Amino acid sequence: MENVIDLPVRTLPVRTLLGPGPSEIDPRVLQALAQPAIGHMDPAFVGLMDEVKDLLRYAFQTSNRLSFPVSGPGSAGMETCFINLLESGDKIVVAQNGVFGQRMADMASRLGAQVITIDDEWGQPVDPGKLEDALTANPDTKVVAFVHAETSTGALSDARVLADIARRHGCLVVADTVTSLAGSPLYIDDWGLDAVYSGGQKCLSSVAGIAPITIGDRALKKINQRQTPVSTWFHDLGLIDGYWSESGQRSYHHTAPVNSIFALAESLRLVKQEGLEHAWARHCQISEQLVAGLERLGLEMMVDDASLRLSQLSVVKVPEGIDEAAVRTQLLDEEDIEIGAGLGPLAGKVWRIGLMGYSCRTENVDRLLSALEGVLGDLPKASVCSR
Amino acid sequence: MENVIDLPVRTLPVRTLLGPGPSEIDPRVLQALAQPAIGHMDPAFVGLMDEVKDLLRYAFQTSNRLSFPVSGPGSAGMETCFINLLESGDKIVVAQNGVFGQRMADMASRLGAQVITIDDEWGQPVDPGKLEDALTANPDTKVVAFVHAETSTGALSDARVLADIARRHGCLVVADTVTSLAGSPLYIDDWGLDAVYSGGQKCLSSVAGIAPITIGDRALKKINQRQTPVSTWFHDLGLIDGYWSESGQRSYHHTAPVNSIFALAESLRLVKQEGLEHAWARHCQISEQLVAGLERLGLEMMVDDASLRLSQLSVVKVPEGIDEAAVRTQLLDEEDIEIGAGLGPLAGKVWRIGLMGYSCRTENVDRLLSALEGVLGDLPKASVCSR
Repeated sequence: MENVIDLPVRTLPVRTLLGPGPSEIDPRVLQALAQPAIGHMDPAFVGLMDEVKDLLRYAFQTSNRLSFPVSGPGSAGMETCFINLLESGDKIVVAQNGVFGQRMADMASRLGAQVITIDDEWGQPVDPGKLEDALTANPDTKVVAFVHAETSTGALSDARVLADIARRHGCLVVADTVTSLAGSPLYIDDWGLDAVYSGGQKCLSSVAGIAPITIGDRALKKINQRQTPVSTWFHDLGLIDGYWSESGQRSYHHTAPVNSIFALAESLRLVKQEGLEHAWARHCQISEQLVAGLERLGLEMMVDDASLRLSQLSVVKVPEGIDEAAVRTQLLDEEDIEIGAGLGPLAGKVWRIGLMGYSCRTENVDRLLSALEGVLGDLPKASVCSR
Repeated sequence: MENVIDLPVRTLPVRTLLGPGPSEIDPRVLQALAQPAIGHMDPAFVGLMDEVKDLLRYAFQTSNRLSFPVSGPGSAGMETCFINLLESGDKIVVAQNGVFGQRMADMASRLGAQVITIDDEWGQPVDPGKLEDALTANPDTKVVAFVHAETSTGALSDARVLADIARRHGCLVVADTVTSLAGSPLYIDDWGLDAVYSGGQKCLSSVAGIAPITIGDRALKKINQRQTPVSTWFHDLGLIDGYWSESGQRSYHHTAPVNSIFALAESLRLVKQEGLEHAWARHCQISEQLVAGLERLGLEMMVDDASLRLSQLSVVKVPEGIDEAAVRTQLLDEEDIEIGAGLGPLAGKVWRIGLMGYSCRTENVDRLLSALEGVLGDLPKASVCSR
């Protein structure tokens, strides 16, 4: 084995992050992230946990006691909801209008659930009529799951209407709010959403790898009545609840990602400081600047109806004859700007431009539009506009 | 909803972390952690991923292609090994000599495996004779699992001997190296360990919430021959491998915790820079200073045989008549020093004193011994020593 050697520190580029996530992290959040670690059972950390739970209840607009960050990415939050809520044989209706609805159906079927899917074209919101029909045809359905804001397509579904239908049919509602939380209006309690997960690295502009979650009483009742144990130890809410429960009763589960929670707490404080309604309005207004600018460049939006578009994620059609990957590479290499590619059936056909959290600033819109104009500049406008 | 408000930043204490983890984070690692995020598909990040895989192969002393950090705490690494390796009905022998062996058995049984446990007293290493007997009595066993360094008791088991026995009986070996990696000699390939996980926040002195893992070819063969799908999407190695595979073939799975991986990379560089053998020797030498100092204070070690003690985690008996929690509280409140409590049957009976990674420095030993002497000072020596 070698002797002590000297390794150079790797220099990473500084990017303007305008893809589907991660978004840029507020400098105040980076500062919180880099505070020296403290123990995960330290009374000072326990105090921080209580603050994080309160701030999450504000961000989610809920009074759910069980509101805390799962120690993993958004997909671990998704898995936590399904693993706890579903037992083998349970019937679930999953709305698929993009990658993340498909992922939900995949997770549910691995757990042995009977999965009924309702499908909408990518780029369209979930059709409430299809949900109504599916539940009428399957009166024994126990859970309905959908994505509020589809990160793969930029479509916003009407979570309140979908939840209403599900509850009229006696179903619990699981909602993916990874991209919507703190970027689009979201009211967990008013809308009757039972088990909801999100991610740290979209509109919260915190770190990737931490997944806020909130679980309501109806969902807890089903979990408490399970006939079979939860199939994993890591996601078992009954155990995790023992760690995140009220102060003074904490029991060890796993070592919480303390530094990520420092960051999450600071990002949630910033959301509270700005106020949710102001944050929603900022995402809306700055995204309108972006869309207007893109249209001036002759580009077309994927979601036709402006009222169904996400403000934090604009999905733009790639003009015909353009090598979309080359454009992204040029933006990254020459301008240090990241935008996202299309996924699944949209691969090669769209770009996904995120304006999430701290990334959602006018200066970023200006930088991107100016860079895009340069990259696309050689194209005759007529060819860009004709479809 | 309220208007824009101003929230004070929470001031966290700076602690000397001498518990069972998290350990103190090297300032260079904190600096790496707080670099601005970049995209999880950014070519610059892909380059970093390749470097992390190489550095992990060094730390684990393995040539396993599939060596990467799981996006979750050590327990998520544990769960990843079991979920992928075990199918319902598979027979597994799990060695239990502390909390983490029990957790392994819990995870395996949730997956429907036939779990045979072999038990050793807490504070003792796993008895190779018991493993031999269990495998002789259960020739259809497919997997053997044990903890290399039991964080709950401070006992080091002989991973090489246990793996030899398992392989002679045709079994795959799962080993928990959460506390041993970079703190105790560990040779994945030479010892024939097939699926091994660790954690970022012990002797690597990186952040909590990231779990290095390495999976060998024999384990992959069993995984590839599964009759049933892996029960969770999040832990499915077949999918995760697509993201962590060789450059140029990356496919999206989940959003990697990019900042935690910045930190992990830097901590692995520091391990490589010091050299594993030097790191092991440092943990050994500084822990000897601690043990000698504790014995001078009249304290007794939990593990009798010095050769079976972990150097990175010393477990000390609480003298009779001492309120162990009051001592920990006083150390924390007055000296900002964290040490750990006992778990399970050792609760109230021991303290766990960690000297892991960046925490493992002579100045920390001196600080703790001086503080402990003050706290325990009022006790008559005779009472402290008599047991």
